[in-house]
Amino acid sequence: MAVEIVYRSSRDPEQLFMDKAQADRHDKMLELAETLGEVLQKAVPQLGEQLAEEVSIYMARHRDIFAKAFKNNPEVLTELDSSGAA
Amino acid sequence: MAVEIVYRSSRDPEQLFMDKAQADRHDKMLELAETLGEVLQKAVPQLGEQLAEEVSIYMARHRDIFAKAFKNNPEVLTELDSSGAA
Repeated sequence: MAVEIVYRSSRDPEQLFMDKAQADRHDKMLELAETLGEVLQKAVPQLGEQLAEEVSIYMARHRDIFAKAFKNNPEVLTELDSSGAA
Repeated sequence: MAVEIVYRSSRDPEQLFMDKAQADRHDKMLELAETLGEVLQKAVPQLGEQLAEEVSIYMARHRDIFAKAFKNNPEVLTELDSSGAA
């Protein structure tokens, strides 16, 4: 037995990572999802908290693809088909 | 009376523009919204077509801000608060 370092995002304390870079990515993903969820719920109130959160986490997990799609290339979204659901 | 040129996107034939560049922007916005709507509905089936479309059109109308948010800067989303609803 030995003491070891694990990393986690304070936004999701149950998810532990052995690798700090992975924990960082997880934290940044959750940060984006949180902000996104608030904005979408305000813009489309019928969404409700639950759906706003699901949509936001899905997009935040695939942020690179959505960044390209919003910038200038909607077709990249077709790459998501093969990568499974939220 | 005189004949004049008006422009429209085939995705939204009722919306006419005097300016071709504006019609182009509208067409590109709708193209992004359409693709986005399909992807989100597939990822979060409980959304349904109507909500997926509303969320997608909202984001497509503000695509520059969402592009930045997804790329690296979620805080830019706070700019949306002052720009009104979908």
